[in-house]
Amino acid sequence: CSLALKSPNESLPNIIIMLMDDMGWGDLGVFGQPSKETPNLDAMAAQGMLFPNFYTANPLCSPSRAALLTGRLPVRNGFYTTNAHARNAYTPQEIVGGISKDEILLPKLLKEKGYTSKLVGKWHLGHRPEHLPLNNGFDEWLGSPNCHFGPYNNIGRPNIPIYFNSEMVGRYYEDEFVIDGKTGESNITMMYLNESMEFILRQSKAHRPFFLYYAPDATHAPVYASKKFLGKSQRGVYGDAVMELDYSVGVILSWLKQLGIDQNTFVFFTSDNGAALYAAKEGGSNGPFLCGKETTFEGGMREPAIAWWPGQIEEGTVSISSHLRNELMAVRLGLYKAHYWTWSNSWQEFNSGINFCPGQEVINVTTHEQRDHTLQPLIFHLGKDPGEKYPIRVLSSEYRDALKSISPIVEQHQKTLVPGAPQLNMCDLAVMNWAPPGCDKIGKCLKGPQSAPWKCEWPH
Amino acid sequence: CSLALKSPNESLPNIIIMLMDDMGWGDLGVFGQPSKETPNLDAMAAQGMLFPNFYTANPLCSPSRAALLTGRLPVRNGFYTTNAHARNAYTPQEIVGGISKDEILLPKLLKEKGYTSKLVGKWHLGHRPEHLPLNNGFDEWLGSPNCHFGPYNNIGRPNIPIYFNSEMVGRYYEDEFVIDGKTGESNITMMYLNESMEFILRQSKAHRPFFLYYAPDATHAPVYASKKFLGKSQRGVYGDAVMELDYSVGVILSWLKQLGIDQNTFVFFTSDNGAALYAAKEGGSNGPFLCGKETTFEGGMREPAIAWWPGQIEEGTVSISSHLRNELMAVRLGLYKAHYWTWSNSWQEFNSGINFCPGQEVINVTTHEQRDHTLQPLIFHLGKDPGEKYPIRVLSSEYRDALKSISPIVEQHQKTLVPGAPQLNMCDLAVMNWAPPGCDKIGKCLKGPQSAPWKCEWPH
Ligand SMILES: [Ca+2]
Ligand SMILES: [Ca+2]
Repeated sequence: CSLALKSPNESLPNIIIMLMDDMGWGDLGVFGQPSKETPNLDAMAAQGMLFPNFYTANPLCSPSRAALLTGRLPVRNGFYTTNAHARNAYTPQEIVGGISKDEILLPKLLKEKGYTSKLVGKWHLGHRPEHLPLNNGFDEWLGSPNCHFGPYNNIGRPNIPIYFNSEMVGRYYEDEFVIDGKTGESNITMMYLNESMEFILRQSKAHRPFFLYYAPDATHAPVYASKKFLGKSQRGVYGDAVMELDYSVGVILSWLKQLGIDQNTFVFFTSDNGAALYAAKEGGSNGPFLCGKETTFEGGMREPAIAWWPGQIEEGTVSISSHLRNELMAVRLGLYKAHYWTWSNSWQEFNSGINFCPGQEVINVTTHEQRDHTLQPLIFHLGKDPGEKYPIRVLSSEYRDALKSISPIVEQHQKTLVPGAPQLNMCDLAVMNWAPPGCDKIGKCLKGPQSAPWKCEWPH
Repeated sequence: CSLALKSPNESLPNIIIMLMDDMGWGDLGVFGQPSKETPNLDAMAAQGMLFPNFYTANPLCSPSRAALLTGRLPVRNGFYTTNAHARNAYTPQEIVGGISKDEILLPKLLKEKGYTSKLVGKWHLGHRPEHLPLNNGFDEWLGSPNCHFGPYNNIGRPNIPIYFNSEMVGRYYEDEFVIDGKTGESNITMMYLNESMEFILRQSKAHRPFFLYYAPDATHAPVYASKKFLGKSQRGVYGDAVMELDYSVGVILSWLKQLGIDQNTFVFFTSDNGAALYAAKEGGSNGPFLCGKETTFEGGMREPAIAWWPGQIEEGTVSISSHLRNELMAVRLGLYKAHYWTWSNSWQEFNSGINFCPGQEVINVTTHEQRDHTLQPLIFHLGKDPGEKYPIRVLSSEYRDALKSISPIVEQHQKTLVPGAPQLNMCDLAVMNWAPPGCDKIGKCLKGPQSAPWKCEWPH
């Protein structure tokens, strides 16, 4: 969609991408969260441009982030699996793969233009040395290579390391990187905020264009917030985490103004995938949309999104325009969305109490086995039915017309598609974060098992 | 909730209540409707005060409106039935009853203070002469006594009359009051807008305080919009109707400014009940909430609400505070909501394709038979779980504490309750709108059948 840019500045604009983790479309006041606890994000939307129809390329962390930084669908950049049909795959500790050397990431392109790039927060494109940020275009990094699951006993499974640039400086759940499992208290979000401000200040003083990829993960279960925010939200700790991130966004935007670089900084806020409804009260809200994370329904793929650039993007604008392409699963064209395959999570998971669509049941749609509709896709009109409750009747002229528009772009896509080599097929306990670079300096090296690779199992 | 009033004006403020019909919480951009098609209401919220937790007294037109105008619960003002337990009852054409002579309506109180009151739109508190607006405190009226169902053949069932003050001036689906069944085209919303503007102008010129009860019904199925708005919305004719009403609200607020009386006029916008989900694409959206119209779940009772009064209500404020009391069904206290009885619609209706909660199914909650939970109410935390998906575990301390707070107010309510005589028990085809006052002047009198009253059947 067009960003209604005015005449470009002489100097290169700074770029900040704020990528939230598992935050849902419905978590922002401006998108209708009933408790209205995101005043800074709401103000950002009022000062910038709101995108009510903004899609991620994939409803799961790793492939979504790989697509964001490469500009290519997961099926092209290799962030998918061929172990089973249409499964979500990501980069847990035991994954052997990561971002391919053949991919060109955004910071690498920006470096050619003189940008300095920093990642603050979660990487999730592979944790073996060759896959880490500083080997893929970033100049600086504070954060973790994987999700902050834990705590682990460091025997069967190591705690996730925190890196500063190319060496680890500690592990989650240890020392200053503690997350209190009972209260959810942690200072990590504040640490990420401070690091971001320091980077912005340093680049601003040096008059160097910068790219800040701000990717805090406090809204990914197990959710956490700092003491100052714990108990503040009507929504529990998940809401506390949202409030702390909302606060952080407000501080960063104020910081840009204070440093006088707001008119030369393009800021884009979004989330990597929809709220994880199976996380129940530790998960967020997808507003009126169907299901959530790990599904190709609207709840999994439509993300909150705001662009902010004072003087360049007109205040209070709303952009309505979107396209959704998720390999063979679903396609959006205009207001119509066609599902070629449907399913939520497997019967096995569902029967064990994991529900990707709690409280929601749409016949023939939110199924627990994969359903092939490729010959006769389920089509929804997202204007009349954003919740994907009423498939359009196959015998109607509306269905015929919609399919006639969609089919050519699907055929074109399939004809031109060159799938990347799948990077997320193999797992091995030996590759876990036992002894990351720098571990020796802080006495955090661990001994892992012998290599014994297997084909990863991806249940959903 | 407090309205944060500044020092009151010397003169009495004008009052405008804008009451929408079946418009849902999720229909406004400011409450997260994805297509963001209500710029005037969103601006009204930005200039005034938004209420994300505002409840109607009943999830159906007539009892909701009776409560609004009397300030009393339907069980007190008589707008309920005793024909069956916990059924929704309203005023269709065959109803014998209406608003009781014992009730004192808002315009009657205002008349004592020198106000002139006008209703523009739907009345729905009974259509027999003694129940009509001009016999219940209003000075003027343009609108209809019942819902605009039809068209009828005027033999088995008469078309609903449109009144101007105390006499009918036509019937729905006839002459200038046509609603095109195929396209949904009708000029009624524009007629209501013009009439409202004329009234405001006249009172403003006469320097008389006024009460305008603006109650258009275009968003009640069958939905309608004028030619200018048809096809404008991404959401179909329902969305067209919303856009026309949003436009009308904008025009009225501008009109107040233009006449220089905006600082002396309190405007309150809301809806009579949640979106009618059983109306499918002719119904609106309840955003993230459970079920809709005719249920006591959040989707039935939580309404969009905005207060606007320049100079008196601070700009851009949000009020979070609410109480819900629906006789014996459900109670909200703080963030906790307890359901004493649950059900959506009957099995009979459900099996015939009428679904009050399409796509939503919460075990033990969205049941199709009435379920008595009075001994152990279902309790939800609306902060963490506004969608009412996760009842709090009965054995938890959270449940015990919540119940301990709620039980005393329920007992107090029951102890002090004096139920009104039920007005909505009897039906009779003879009382339908055959020959309303004024019908003779325009040749629209019809002959009805002999009186043969029966106990009305209220299926849900
Ligand atoms: Ca994620
Ligand atoms: Ca209604």
